[in-house]
Amino acid sequence: METSPEILYRHVENIFPVFRSITGRGIRQTLEYISDQTTDFQIHHVASGTRVLDWTVPDEWNVNSATIRRTNGEIVIDWARCNLHLVHYSIPIHARVSRTELEKHLHWLPDQPDLIPYRTSYYNHDWGFCLSARQRAQLTDEEYDVDIRTELGPGHLSYGEVLIPATHPLNEKADEVLFSVHCCHPSLANDNASSIAIAIELIRNLRNMPCRHLSYRFLFIPGTIGSITWLARNRHILQHVRHGLVMSCLGDDGSPTYKQSRQGNAAIDRYAAHLVETRWGGRVVPFEPYGYDERQYCSPGFNLPVGCLMRSPNGQFAQYHTSADNLDFVTPAGLYASFCFITDLVMMIEKDFLPRSLFPYGEPQLGRRGLYKAIGGGDEDAGGAKFDQMTLLWTLNLADGGHSLLDIAIRADKPFAAVAAAADALTQAGLLAQRSG
Amino acid sequence: METSPEILYRHVENIFPVFRSITGRGIRQTLEYISDQTTDFQIHHVASGTRVLDWTVPDEWNVNSATIRRTNGEIVIDWARCNLHLVHYSIPIHARVSRTELEKHLHWLPDQPDLIPYRTSYYNHDWGFCLSARQRAQLTDEEYDVDIRTELGPGHLSYGEVLIPATHPLNEKADEVLFSVHCCHPSLANDNASSIAIAIELIRNLRNMPCRHLSYRFLFIPGTIGSITWLARNRHILQHVRHGLVMSCLGDDGSPTYKQSRQGNAAIDRYAAHLVETRWGGRVVPFEPYGYDERQYCSPGFNLPVGCLMRSPNGQFAQYHTSADNLDFVTPAGLYASFCFITDLVMMIEKDFLPRSLFPYGEPQLGRRGLYKAIGGGDEDAGGAKFDQMTLLWTLNLADGGHSLLDIAIRADKPFAAVAAAADALTQAGLLAQRSG
Amino acid sequence: METSPEILYRHVENIFPVFRSITGRGIRQTLEYISDQTTDFQIHHVASGTRVLDWTVPDEWNVNSATIRRTNGEIVIDWARCNLHLVHYSIPIHARVSRTELEKHLHWLPDQPDLIPYRTSYYNHDWGFCLSARQRAQLTDEEYDVDIRTELGPGHLSYGEVLIPATHPLNEKADEVLFSVHCCHPSLANDNASSIAIAIELIRNLRNMPCRHLSYRFLFIPGTIGSITWLARNRHILQHVRHGLVMSCLGDDGSPTYKQSRQGNAAIDRYAAHLVETRWGGRVVPFEPYGYDERQYCSPGFNLPVGCLMRSPNGQFAQYHTSADNLDFVTPAGLYASFCFITDLVMMIEKDFLPRSLFPYGEPQLGRRGLYKAIGGGDEDAGGAKFDQMTLLWTLNLADGGHSLLDIAIRADKPFAAVAAAADALTQAGLLAQRSG
Repeated sequence: METSPEILYRHVENIFPVFRSITGRGIRQTLEYISDQTTDFQIHHVASGTRVLDWTVPDEWNVNSATIRRTNGEIVIDWARCNLHLVHYSIPIHARVSRTELEKHLHWLPDQPDLIPYRTSYYNHDWGFCLSARQRAQLTDEEYDVDIRTELGPGHLSYGEVLIPATHPLNEKADEVLFSVHCCHPSLANDNASSIAIAIELIRNLRNMPCRHLSYRFLFIPGTIGSITWLARNRHILQHVRHGLVMSCLGDDGSPTYKQSRQGNAAIDRYAAHLVETRWGGRVVPFEPYGYDERQYCSPGFNLPVGCLMRSPNGQFAQYHTSADNLDFVTPAGLYASFCFITDLVMMIEKDFLPRSLFPYGEPQLGRRGLYKAIGGGDEDAGGAKFDQMTLLWTLNLADGGHSLLDIAIRADKPFAAVAAAADALTQAGLLAQRSG
Repeated sequence: METSPEILYRHVENIFPVFRSITGRGIRQTLEYISDQTTDFQIHHVASGTRVLDWTVPDEWNVNSATIRRTNGEIVIDWARCNLHLVHYSIPIHARVSRTELEKHLHWLPDQPDLIPYRTSYYNHDWGFCLSARQRAQLTDEEYDVDIRTELGPGHLSYGEVLIPATHPLNEKADEVLFSVHCCHPSLANDNASSIAIAIELIRNLRNMPCRHLSYRFLFIPGTIGSITWLARNRHILQHVRHGLVMSCLGDDGSPTYKQSRQGNAAIDRYAAHLVETRWGGRVVPFEPYGYDERQYCSPGFNLPVGCLMRSPNGQFAQYHTSADNLDFVTPAGLYASFCFITDLVMMIEKDFLPRSLFPYGEPQLGRRGLYKAIGGGDEDAGGAKFDQMTLLWTLNLADGGHSLLDIAIRADKPFAAVAAAADALTQAGLLAQRSG
Repeated sequence: METSPEILYRHVENIFPVFRSITGRGIRQTLEYISDQTTDFQIHHVASGTRVLDWTVPDEWNVNSATIRRTNGEIVIDWARCNLHLVHYSIPIHARVSRTELEKHLHWLPDQPDLIPYRTSYYNHDWGFCLSARQRAQLTDEEYDVDIRTELGPGHLSYGEVLIPATHPLNEKADEVLFSVHCCHPSLANDNASSIAIAIELIRNLRNMPCRHLSYRFLFIPGTIGSITWLARNRHILQHVRHGLVMSCLGDDGSPTYKQSRQGNAAIDRYAAHLVETRWGGRVVPFEPYGYDERQYCSPGFNLPVGCLMRSPNGQFAQYHTSADNLDFVTPAGLYASFCFITDLVMMIEKDFLPRSLFPYGEPQLGRRGLYKAIGGGDEDAGGAKFDQMTLLWTLNLADGGHSLLDIAIRADKPFAAVAAAADALTQAGLLAQRSG
């Protein structure tokens, strides 16, 4: 697969400035950017008030301006300068309020006095501003003029979707891999412009992949209400979701964090753990019903095999949900490492199968098939070749139809890629059954 | 539940002085004390010679007096002064014996020279005295007069039983919780006046508990032969014993020791382990076929889910089976902590069930039901509430009919009580199915 | 069982000097030695060219002489002086070759300059010499005369087999224990004259064992092609192989190494692990598809419960496959310890069964059957007897038809032999069901 750290970073730069929320112009502008970068991209619009599972699609919210001014007219807080300043879904207000009243509507971070937090109040209609502790300390006047010009009314929830069909499906109706990316946050680079960027490049590369046993579906949705809306409208698809991954916070320089699906031992969980252990480092953390849209995919009624890949995990880095999650925090190298991790996952998903030896009684004679060292008895002629020989022997020995390539890699303590290569060689030598389908 | 450390200790003081053995006047006197303290208490009498499983109810044994005297008539050892002096089931004897002969019948503790041991010989008819090593060192005369006035002959084995029926049974024939207390030891305070005291207070409190899904049965029995007799006479009940606990040595200041049932993963085993781990400290030890009446309940043919709760376990404290197991060794605080541990167990037994979400597809919208924080995106508004929120989310997420509240507590790493409270709140909000039955 | 360290060592001394390969006069001479030491020993001859599984029985190879000479006729390397000098299956050659050409056919150990390695090239027809690095350094002439007089042509592959039938079979067709010994290596004492010696003494002793529930089959075979040949000709027997052990490198002073079967939890795996843990020390290593003939027995189609016992494992001792694997490296004590380990294994194999208590409801009254201590209540009269008492109680408690004696030994943390003795005592007292069959 081909992309570059720079290409990924440029997407982030393009996406970052847009003011997004769970509905409204910003998320639609972002979806259009993704559409421009890819092909066959569909944008869905679901009307406010539509019932989706236990929820209702909310009214659409758009912001024209939001300021706090001194009574002399001087602007002290302006959403136009930093789009984190406004609590999402703030209702319109145009009033002079006392400092005491104003402070009830302010959010700041006492321990990070220079940072502006990001806050929302989607379902509890109120208004509020986010600002740094230093900015707040300077609000010493007795009264301020608050001017929030937002529109909240019937409209649409918008989300994007791409389906890249299998070229060589193993079943009549190809199973799917589901990638889910939330794109409802405003100017936060890691959370989640990073994942949008990586998803764009994955889509481009998957389209060019010559053989795909599975279909790949990408969702670009507002968090929570977006996945709930998609799930409500696509229940017939869910039985075909064989693997799934929520992508979030994938651009910083931390090591990978894979959060398991609720199932805990789904194939995607085992693949990701193998990559963490053998290649990419990082950590595997157990499922918990908090975080991103895996909460919905992994609700007990659906219980889909959907994990979540992050680098520094949500809530565990200082920049999380603050103005410090900016273009300095995300790096080309971090983005590219995430892209490569996911392409490794795709490789495992496509390559893994349950091999079955065609010569299971005793070892087949590898020598006459050119698969064995010539001189027996010593170590000196093993060297680098011994590694491959053991991988080959393990693959043959466990090719009983009950062990996947991953099972073999784990038992043999070899990288999956080496076992997959050995299985290819054995298949070409006529010793392994081809995968069915 | 209500009692007090002092009430528990007073029972021990009342029970301690009585001379008990596996049959005879002392155990009957003890059963009458328990009967006086409770209601609907039944005392059963089983005739000597009755076949019970592989055993036979022994003859009844009573002691009138037992002394060792110098040939000048001076009493040197007197059962009336300390009722541990006589080996249980000693046969009558009235004879002058040489010191050499006498010593064959003496039991003492070389390493604890001031303590008198407790010894029995129920099924091997002999006689003997227990005394301190210091007392024994003073027996320097050539001859002594031994005078044991015991009666051993046909009579009865007596045991007590209380059944507190379920108020809200989940089945037509309510399942039972079995508590078993041995009360065949003479003046040993921890082993087992302590457990008799706690059982009395449990009976009183369980009677007043407004809702009991299960019935509670308490047995006050002589060790080994008592449980064998009860088992032989109550085989039709055993299929209803869902949980059981042998109570022993529950009054000292050591931390709790829970000994698992033979099954090892019975519900009672998991409940007790959870309490040890999350609330009370102490240790869980695996089953072994030695100890108290769990040996009988956990014999392979019955294999009942019966564990054993102790504080300092049998044989592992210096006072065990000696005159130092007295009213100083048992404390009001130790007794009360044991009582509370068991009431926690009862709470878990009554409260646990397999919840099932009524909205399993996606998360139900907690906000409009008043179960979710209002402002999203930050940590500062989580605080103490976040704990509850995670418990709530875990309970919903695992409410698939395949996880008990305890399973959820373990997976979520939360106290059972918190999960039970969350399940109550969710049930009241119409999100969880009520327990059936 | 009876033998002695000296008897075992004498066999090694007798076997060591013979030049063996996978076919030819040397392996036949060795089989005749074994035949002379035992009874009912069968030697099988399989013609070259016979198809066996995926392989073909190779031509027979014999050596008359092999030398490297200086052009003045001085012998510098002579197979007659050390039979490791010739690469096995070297083709005949009689030619003057340049030093450069000669060196392509030489094998030596740079890190062990005094040792001559052992090398083979069974299926890749070539010629070669093995020599020490010091010998090689002295080959400074420009040309040498190479003279290899070998015969390679149709003949036979020979292997030996003994079946010691069960005296008290548990089934109509007695199950078998398979011992497999490779005997295709030339003068290497540990690998594998040691195992041939031990196998001879096991055969002698098993014949004299009064009660054998199982049959014992010993194979003396050339490595790889021998086991493949035997497997190809005996597929009807394989279903009766209940336990199997490859014996290799059993004479050095290292601690035992048991390599598990592919199944990993076969009875033989558990028996060997118990002996390592409780009696003999050493280590248990997992199966891998490399090593000795277990590779064939444990190929996925057969998947027999065959482990491999060694002391220092193949490839992990400095003397492995070199001239230092000689009569100094193998010791009488090492041989004898291996013999005793295997006789312990045989004892477990013969003794283990699933006991079933005839009195499973409550404990049977052990006292009246003479199986319980007389005085209850103390520790002092337990002592050594307590060990046995706990073993007895565990055996009774777990005698539910679902636990083998080994299961009981592991759960009770007692040696298997103690549990077997307890089971015997309980059977004699009428408390345990005899094993069926």
